[in-house]
Amino acid sequence: MAATLYVCQTCRAAAGDAPGSDAGDAVRPGARLVAALLSAPAPEGVDIRPVECLSACSQGCSVALSAPGKWSYVYGRLSEADAAAILEGAARYAASADGLVPWRERPEIFRKQSLARIPPQE
Amino acid sequence: MAATLYVCQTCRAAAGDAPGSDAGDAVRPGARLVAALLSAPAPEGVDIRPVECLSACSQGCSVALSAPGKWSYVYGRLSEADAAAILEGAARYAASADGLVPWRERPEIFRKQSLARIPPQE
Repeated sequence: MAATLYVCQTCRAAAGDAPGSDAGDAVRPGARLVAALLSAPAPEGVDIRPVECLSACSQGCSVALSAPGKWSYVYGRLSEADAAAILEGAARYAASADGLVPWRERPEIFRKQSLARIPPQE
Repeated sequence: MAATLYVCQTCRAAAGDAPGSDAGDAVRPGARLVAALLSAPAPEGVDIRPVECLSACSQGCSVALSAPGKWSYVYGRLSEADAAAILEGAARYAASADGLVPWRERPEIFRKQSLARIPPQE
């Protein structure tokens, strides 16, 4: 039931992240999201992996969830403020049989900010 | 080197598809895209598979390319007029080792209308 949470670490964009609004904005929003996700213990069965680009740049920051035999999902318009909800959703995904977490058990960002999903590989 | 081309057959939207502009608009744009893709011989190594939803509804119509050991890709804002280019891109994807087709060999819709990509499963 293990799953991989891919996080775009190179993303330059973040929802509500106005240029110059943050003394730390020399650090890319994607890198800040990675740091926030790694600052807590990873949920059971979830491997967090920073990647270079998820090709969802106009909808960044973005993450993807994938596991053998499961539907894959990509979520966007995220920021470091969403780290706890992302980890909660990843835990439910990892615990699911096929990646299809019941709607009401999904964090709101997973319900509203899906960019795409891809069927399981056979 | 085989690959699967998933096509959302339930999509209601299509780029440039004004409501009432087409006598055939009782048929969903997703179904029309599926029909267009299946009307030509499938490229070598490409399995075309209609699916219910790729969760990219705001960017429909959409397709996904996936294969064991390769990066997966999702493309959006497509219509039946793009069928030939989609099949050309799918053929190049199927022939690639890792799903990463050189930029200049990708059809324009694949260069400009990527919604997301997901790393290969390990």
